[in-house]
Parts: sequence; structure tokens; C-alpha cells
Amino acid sequence: MAFINENYLKLPGSYLFSEIARRVNNFKNENPNAKIIRLGIGDVTRPLVPAVIDAMHKAVEEMAKEETFRGYGPEQGYRFLIDKIIENDYAPRGIKLDEDEVFVSDGAKSDTGNFQEIFGLDNKIAVTDPVYPVYVDSNVMAGRTGEYLEHGYFEKITYLPCTAENNFIPELPKEKVDIIYLCFPNNPTGMTLSKEELKKWVDYAKENRAIILFDSAYEAFIREKDVPHSIYEVEGADEVAIEFRSFSKTAGFTGTRCAYTVVPKKVVAYTKNGEAHQLNSLWNRRQTTKFNGVPYIIQRAAAAVYTPEGQKQIRETIDYYMDNAKIIKEGLEDAGLTVFGGVNAPYIWLKTPTGISSWEFFDIMLKEINVVGTPGSGFGPSGEGYFRLTAFGSRENTLEAIERFKNLKL
Amino acid sequence: MAFINENYLKLPGSYLFSEIARRVNNFKNENPNAKIIRLGIGDVTRPLVPAVIDAMHKAVEEMAKEETFRGYGPEQGYRFLIDKIIENDYAPRGIKLDEDEVFVSDGAKSDTGNFQEIFGLDNKIAVTDPVYPVYVDSNVMAGRTGEYLEHGYFEKITYLPCTAENNFIPELPKEKVDIIYLCFPNNPTGMTLSKEELKKWVDYAKENRAIILFDSAYEAFIREKDVPHSIYEVEGADEVAIEFRSFSKTAGFTGTRCAYTVVPKKVVAYTKNGEAHQLNSLWNRRQTTKFNGVPYIIQRAAAAVYTPEGQKQIRETIDYYMDNAKIIKEGLEDAGLTVFGGVNAPYIWLKTPTGISSWEFFDIMLKEINVVGTPGSGFGPSGEGYFRLTAFGSRENTLEAIERFKNLKL
Repeated sequence: MAFINENYLKLPGSYLFSEIARRVNNFKNENPNAKIIRLGIGDVTRPLVPAVIDAMHKAVEEMAKEETFRGYGPEQGYRFLIDKIIENDYAPRGIKLDEDEVFVSDGAKSDTGNFQEIFGLDNKIAVTDPVYPVYVDSNVMAGRTGEYLEHGYFEKITYLPCTAENNFIPELPKEKVDIIYLCFPNNPTGMTLSKEELKKWVDYAKENRAIILFDSAYEAFIREKDVPHSIYEVEGADEVAIEFRSFSKTAGFTGTRCAYTVVPKKVVAYTKNGEAHQLNSLWNRRQTTKFNGVPYIIQRAAAAVYTPEGQKQIRETIDYYMDNAKIIKEGLEDAGLTVFGGVNAPYIWLKTPTGISSWEFFDIMLKEINVVGTPGSGFGPSGEGYFRLTAFGSRENTLEAIERFKNLKL
Repeated sequence: MAFINENYLKLPGSYLFSEIARRVNNFKNENPNAKIIRLGIGDVTRPLVPAVIDAMHKAVEEMAKEETFRGYGPEQGYRFLIDKIIENDYAPRGIKLDEDEVFVSDGAKSDTGNFQEIFGLDNKIAVTDPVYPVYVDSNVMAGRTGEYLEHGYFEKITYLPCTAENNFIPELPKEKVDIIYLCFPNNPTGMTLSKEELKKWVDYAKENRAIILFDSAYEAFIREKDVPHSIYEVEGADEVAIEFRSFSKTAGFTGTRCAYTVVPKKVVAYTKNGEAHQLNSLWNRRQTTKFNGVPYIIQRAAAAVYTPEGQKQIRETIDYYMDNAKIIKEGLEDAGLTVFGGVNAPYIWLKTPTGISSWEFFDIMLKEINVVGTPGSGFGPSGEGYFRLTAFGSRENTLEAIERFKNLKL
């Protein structure tokens, strides 16, 4: 008799964005004429830039000819892309990486979801709260947590609250933890950590032989000078940190799918007997066994992001979104709301009016002004009473949404 | 202190194809002028067909314009592709599937590797032997097996030998098993199961409430009329079987990456308390949490395979490969070797001459005639004394390899 993985049954309800989609679809069915504006899921709307489009057409042509056709590529990604990543995203910040320390993948969601596989089940996990749900859910599925508790907590996970009260800066955990998920610029709060704050975590990890899983998918949106783009800007981080990056938001690849993960060879974790093993070789084993690489055409597209034209063009798109962020932030502030983020990140994190929960606010917005956002509580218990809007809409929709906000009776 | 997943340490050496690549690279470094012919890894060499190329160019153009740009798609795949799959691959064989029973993915390697996640760790696994290594390795990594034993066996896995002695038809296991991996047409042996033989497995699964994970990645290569293309041709299989398919070999997508998995809603597995749960909803949860779908452009490419031109064009490519298979099979037989497969599959499974092991044969072929194949023992202990060649080379290389075979002194 085949048995299921019962850890799955610990997960309450459906995945956050599926639940949002369900509610929006229900509303649409009942109100077919409503003009819904989606500022909820962090999905981009600007087309791929010309440099990327050209590179893909060329790569498609290569696939049409026997002499240039590509079959299986390296599971870890093509050198032509990995070299560009190192040269452009790391070398200019004084970070040295070997080619076999970068793993190209189909998405940071896959990588942040799958990376936990190479760790034992008895590691103690810490997450900031609110948090991108994939970090938690993938650990629940693997059996690294206990049961679901009230108010959105799971047993055996250490939650690090990030709220207006601590200016969204997580405190070091009081109990010892082994694996720490950090995401800065943060999804969902849009807030950042200074290099000094980040150093506290690197020091903690070194002292406790813990591992930091650092998601920097939003680094391209950083505007302020002193905010670190990579955790490896902190000395010694290459001994304790894995870094996840993505082309999804940086270059509009949410439907094109390419990301990468940096796994320095210096980073080790241990057997129960205290024997150190490189995470790099474990992850390599995982990827070569369960993954067959990113499509050649897509890797060419990603490489084109690093050409001078590509860089100029994606910068324009990022500026466009960050102008949206400013419009939303200022518009909401004018409407009397308390607003965070939106300066170094495409996310605006607003405080819901007193007494209104995140999901109540979601339903009010959907029904009253037909604007879709993401309930803060969907990101964790400390997200209750907050609400996320994203800057990835069109300018027209962003302006329209803010206009409608003025009419929102709360 | 962060602990590793110690199950990874049970895996001996490197992944089969990585080991082959290593030996070939060493040989190339020492013999830079050798003209190596690769008939080892099952990688295709014919370019993508014109219908697919056209569809990709069009989809790239869509991604260049705001009005037609696509961001995140459904994790399960776009309806336009799922509908084509059902209409073309299943409906004509009398198999009815709902749209939410088909999950589009980036590869059958990923899906066959990841699918075990939704099962508990105490299921008893059975695999045919020889076998595609991913089925075994992914279960080892998850901790569903014991230690590595001598001769390529793992504790707690039930091996079902498929050798010349039983005409490569696995016998039902003597002990009870819960999850059975079957692949027909088989990789690596190239042999098939009749509907009657397949029915025995479906009956076994129904009686024992076991699950069959059926890999039919090679169904497009079936030439004989009475060989089943899908396990769902067997009545009742939709209650006990999951089916994996891929565009990799069917349409030359090894570097383009698209596949799909059928998870009928009738298929259930159980909690320890005997509560039945649909695998469909568990897999859906897995995919929505840890995967973000296949690139839009690639899904358009896959959909183009089902146009009348696409079907005609891929059929020509498949014929080309199957003509190669015939050339290899007959050439090796002429050279006095005993050969299996190659009739309904692009794989030729030859018996190595008496006293020569699979890896010895690999090294001899590489050194003497510079032809790369895959050692049978790499697929499991019952593969020892066999060797796999694939029909995916160019005609020229295939003919040349067979010519060289004539000069091979054994």
C-alpha cells in the first residue's frame, strides 16, 4: 500500500497566490465588467527588452540548423552565461567566484524551494516574518517542521518578526538556529538591511556554524548607495552564505524563466559525526540528478541582459517600475496611509487601517475599487495588519489604482 | 550547526553521465586529434523542426510587445498546450483526461526525480534492473533506501531483473512493494512490454494499492502495432498509474526542455490511518510551491509539435533515428554481437563479449575506435555485461561508428 508524505497535510489551505487567484476569479465571474487592476502578485508587465529579443531570435535560428543545434547542455548552465554573471554581478563589487560556484536554474522559486533538500531533517530553521511562503512551505513538506499552529505559525520554526516596531530589521534569534533564510531587499516589506546589520548575521552564522540562504532577487532595484547588493560584500560571507538571484524582476523574465544560485566552495555543513562537506558538491549532485538545465535559448536571452545595450535597456525598465513605486508610495501617503518600502524595492508595504485585517483589506479593495494586492498575513503572522502592493503594473494602471484609492472609504 | 542530508553520502561516485563525460574529457585531453563519435548519452542531434522554429519566433515577438507579453503562467502549464496533449496523445487511444490531470514541466528527469517527494519515506520501492539512474538516486537522496551494497544494489529497494534470460520482461515482485517504476519502451534496453504483460502490473497495483510510475518518454519510437503507447490503454490503470512523457526525444527538445506528467484524479495513496488522498492534489501542491512553469516560448514550441506540419516533420526525424537504429542493430549483428532493442526504441542494448565487463567495454571502445557508448552496469547490476548505444547520432556518424566496429578486436 502506497503511503503519502503526510507532511503535506500540515499545510493549511492553498498556496497564497492560488488563493488570491481563486478569490479574484470568483469576483470576476460575479462582476464580468469590473476593470480589475492587479498590483498583487509580483509579476512584471513591461515586455522583454530588444537586446534579449534579438538574442532569442538568433538562438532560435541556431536551433534550426544541424551545425549549431544544441541538445543537452550542462545542468549547471552554459559557461557563456556564468562568465557574464561573474563579470557583471560580482567582479565589480570585488567578489571573486569560480565558474563552478554559480548554478543557472529555471527560477529562484525552484532553487529556494529545492535547496533545503541537501540539508538533514533535524536542522533548526529560522525565517524572517513576514516571509516569502516558499521558504516555509518547502521545509514543511520535507518534514523539517512540526504541526501548524494557530495564527500562521509552525512548530519548530524560529520566526524573526520584522514590523514597523523594529523598523523591519530582524533581531538575532535567542535560541540557536542552523539555517537562516534572509531576503533583502525584502519581499514583501520592500525594506533593506545595511551592511552593518547584515554583518551581524554573517558573524552569527560563523560562530554557530549556521548557513544563511540569502535571496537577493531584488538587488537590481536598490537606489540608495550604502545598501549591499550581495551578501558577499560582507567579509567572510563566502564561508556561510548561499545567494539566490533571478532575472525575473531584473529583466522581466517571470514568463521566460531564468535564475541562478551562488554556492561558494568554502561553505560547508556537517554530518552528525562532525565531518564537513561542501554544499557546492551536494547541490551539484542534486542538480545533476534532478534537473537538466535551462533551455539554451533562454540562457542566450539571459546572457544578452549583460550586453551594454541590454544593461541600458533593463535599467530603463527598472526605472519605470521604481517611478511606479514612488507614485504608489506618495499616493498612499497622501491618502493618509502609513507606507514602507518602495525606495530600494518594487514592493510597497502598507499598514492597514486600525481594526481591518489583511484579508479584510484585500476583499474591500477588490470589491470597492477593483484593485488586487497581497494580504500581508499571507506572508506570515507578523504580516497581519499589512498589505503589499507592487510597482510592476503599467503606469496607466498604477495611476488609475492610486486615483481609485482616493475614493476608498475605510 | 547546520547538518547535511547524509543520504547523499550513500550515493557511490558520480552520476553515470558525469562519469562518462569525465572519462571522455580525459581521453580527449590525451588524444586531442581523435575524432570521437558519441552514441552514449541519449542526446539528439537533428535540429528542431520548422513548425517549432516558426512558433518560437512568433512567441519571441509576442514577448517583445506590451499587449502580448507574458509574465508568470500557470505553474501547471498553459491550456493551449495541455489541450493539444490530451487531443493528440490520449483521445485517439480512447483515453479521457481532464485538463487538470496534465502537468507541463521542464523535463521528465525533473518529474521522475521529484515525484517521489509526495510519498512517505517508508514506501517500498521497486525498479526494473537495469534502470534509468534517476529513479533510484532520487529515492536514495530522500532516504527511502538503506545503504549502498556491493555490486550496485541499495538496501530496501526491490530490483526486478530484466535480462536476456527473461527476454527483458520483469517478473512481479515476490515481496510486497508500494511504488513501482516502469519505463517502456525501456531505457536502457530498448525492449517493450505487451499490453498483456502491462496488465499484470496494473492488476498487481490494484490488488496491493501500489502506485506505478510509468515513464513512456520513448513511446513515439514504437513501430510495432500491438505495443501500448500509454499505460492508460490498460483498463483501470487510471486508478493506479502516473505517466511521464517528454518532448526531448519525440521532438528534439533535449536542449529546449519540455515534458509533461499525467496524474489522474482517481489515483490515491494513503495516510498511515488509511485515509485516501489524491496524488493529483499533492503533486499540484508540490508544483505550485516549488516550480514556476515552463517558459511561455517553450510551451508555444511544444504546442507546435501538434500542428499537422509539426507532426509530419517530427515523424521524419523519428524515422531518421529509427533508420539509424536499424543500421546499428544490423551492423552489430553482422559483427557477431548479440543485440536487443532498436525496433520500438532508439536504444540498442548489446551483450558485451564473454569476460568483458561493461566499463571495460566502454574503455576499449573509447580507446580503440573512439566511440562512446554507455556501460550497462551504470544502469544497475543486471546491466553488467551489457552496453547501450543510441540511435540519436547523425547518419554519417552512425555509419562511421559501425564501420569502425568491424575493426574492433575483441
